[in-house]
Amino acid sequence: MRNFTFYNPTRIHFGEGQIKALAKEIPAGSRVLVTHGGGSIFNNGVWEQVEQALQGYHLSRFGGIEPNPQFATLVRAVEQLKAEQCDFILAVGGGSVIDGSKFIAMAACHDGDPLQLLTGTRATRALPLGCVLTLAATGSESNPGGVVSHAALKAKLPFSNPLLFPRFAVLDPRTTFSLPPRQIGNGVVDAFVHTIEQYLTYPADAPLQDRYAEGLLLTLIEEGPKALANPEDYAVRANLMWCATQALNGLIGCGVPQDWATHLIGHELTALHGLDHAQTLAILLPAVLAERREAKRAKLLQYADRVWQIGAGDEDARIDAAIARTVEFFESMGVPTRLAAYQLGQEVIDPVVAQLSAHRMVALGEHRDIDPQTSARILTRAL
Amino acid sequence: MRNFTFYNPTRIHFGEGQIKALAKEIPAGSRVLVTHGGGSIFNNGVWEQVEQALQGYHLSRFGGIEPNPQFATLVRAVEQLKAEQCDFILAVGGGSVIDGSKFIAMAACHDGDPLQLLTGTRATRALPLGCVLTLAATGSESNPGGVVSHAALKAKLPFSNPLLFPRFAVLDPRTTFSLPPRQIGNGVVDAFVHTIEQYLTYPADAPLQDRYAEGLLLTLIEEGPKALANPEDYAVRANLMWCATQALNGLIGCGVPQDWATHLIGHELTALHGLDHAQTLAILLPAVLAERREAKRAKLLQYADRVWQIGAGDEDARIDAAIARTVEFFESMGVPTRLAAYQLGQEVIDPVVAQLSAHRMVALGEHRDIDPQTSARILTRAL
Repeated sequence: MRNFTFYNPTRIHFGEGQIKALAKEIPAGSRVLVTHGGGSIFNNGVWEQVEQALQGYHLSRFGGIEPNPQFATLVRAVEQLKAEQCDFILAVGGGSVIDGSKFIAMAACHDGDPLQLLTGTRATRALPLGCVLTLAATGSESNPGGVVSHAALKAKLPFSNPLLFPRFAVLDPRTTFSLPPRQIGNGVVDAFVHTIEQYLTYPADAPLQDRYAEGLLLTLIEEGPKALANPEDYAVRANLMWCATQALNGLIGCGVPQDWATHLIGHELTALHGLDHAQTLAILLPAVLAERREAKRAKLLQYADRVWQIGAGDEDARIDAAIARTVEFFESMGVPTRLAAYQLGQEVIDPVVAQLSAHRMVALGEHRDIDPQTSARILTRAL
Repeated sequence: MRNFTFYNPTRIHFGEGQIKALAKEIPAGSRVLVTHGGGSIFNNGVWEQVEQALQGYHLSRFGGIEPNPQFATLVRAVEQLKAEQCDFILAVGGGSVIDGSKFIAMAACHDGDPLQLLTGTRATRALPLGCVLTLAATGSESNPGGVVSHAALKAKLPFSNPLLFPRFAVLDPRTTFSLPPRQIGNGVVDAFVHTIEQYLTYPADAPLQDRYAEGLLLTLIEEGPKALANPEDYAVRANLMWCATQALNGLIGCGVPQDWATHLIGHELTALHGLDHAQTLAILLPAVLAERREAKRAKLLQYADRVWQIGAGDEDARIDAAIARTVEFFESMGVPTRLAAYQLGQEVIDPVVAQLSAHRMVALGEHRDIDPQTSARILTRAL
């Protein structure tokens, strides 16, 4: 096991009715910027619960944070926050709203061009942030990172700073009942690939981390299809919500090598072609595993055995079968796994690779040896 | 899954050489009470590393905190702390030193008899506490609880308060190389039973928590005997250390029923007869499982299958086999599982049951239905 530091101070309030915990978490007298997405919170009862919990607080609502939150949108939110003199941010939504709100929290305390915070300047202060999660997927509700999209730069710009851990996160599985199937599928794929990025590398004498990761994968495989079939099954939604949080709160990555090539190549596909984040992961992960078969051989065999119960037969056949089962699982969640399914072909490869180079993503993966040529081969496998 | 709140702000610095992190964790200028046990830290290089990391700090050393830390000892530590005007506590040791230091941290801020803090008065302030763990077992390094023994009362008095989360914990597996076999075995049994108390109850629609717990149990079974055979195998010690922390940091207990009868009956055995904490657990757990076979049937079968690979045959035979394997495992770790092995017999039962009643431990277990008569039957099974 490698040396590591683990720290995660976010307080999780999990379960139905927990939105009422907001009143004890946000200091009395706070002026709260409430951020959200497209407006579903007005139809599913979430906004009503938030408003009720926060009676007596000054609330300023900023809606319209889009999937892959846009820099320009967030800058407008910062302006509203300053005009309203807000001193606390409450993100109500999924990963995009929370990621965007983390950026708002930094930018509100930053003198100068907020773009600096995405291009090398480290924030030294941030407003306190809490969240009410309504989509189980990214884990942003209890980690210190985020990704902001910049349309003009055609880039997804990641950031991470311990100042940005949400102070608290309310996880009420009922808030996810009304999600459309596409978001359910995307969420499961996202949590699955977050787990794989920290698990499917090479053996590192970390059997507990492996078993935690396998526990996440097995649970996602078991519960994901049930959520599509019975969207209002509380137990299923609760398990998916807890899995998604656990998949990217830092725990399973403690002391082990990590990959993240699938994510980083996927970011370019989203930035150039507008695919959903999880769609890019479903396309790229099988291609990454196939391309990196030798470097990942030992863990691919372990994955085949422990996650898919493929423990006998020729090694390469086992690996092929495990990758095939992964593809089937993503497809069963309604997330296609080929570029062609999104009307994208050979023509996307060169521009994606050029953007990877432009963003200095030229040494990816757990061995830092996925160069632009390898990325091109991965994309070719995903056609 | 049940509703829950999870919060764990302890920062973990894990790995060899991490003791040097002390200097960035303890505020400059602090006056530090360094607490420890019997003196092994002078022989294994730990004290040297601590002193070196804390050059320039005012250090006041308080040694001699015993296993099952005694109230009277800790009161002396509080006196020394006050005389030396210390404002930070650094516990260097295992669970007893850390538990004791948590009590010192509360008592240092308490006006009045410190015994009140163990008999119903809730602490409202505590000094900040950090720790250097030298024995993987109790999980006290990243949880808010502890147990203090009171000789005159013949009682082990538990407490828990979020103020008592260590600010940080240094986990360097090398500090455990010099432990004697008895402490290695005890540590593994302790972490194993902590896991079982939160796992082996009844199904609660929490498959991820189950798999995390099973991951812990499997890893302890795999790594425990290796630590006895090769005490200086770093990877083995690292895995055991991480398992012990994970077993009682609150995570696997999120949203699930919990038992703790084994612990609470065990506390009385230690208080009356001086057995090591883990010895009491090794004696009592198999007896609790046998006595509670019907209430725990579904989870006993899952435990048999997933932890011991006993998945076929008559249900009761599978349960018997799983309990037998548990006994074998504890014995293989050098921890005997019968009262007789500690020269205790029938005569201990009535006094233990009387103490349980005196301490109002009359409705134990996940169903709160283990009354004194049931506790007596459990003890009888453990003869």
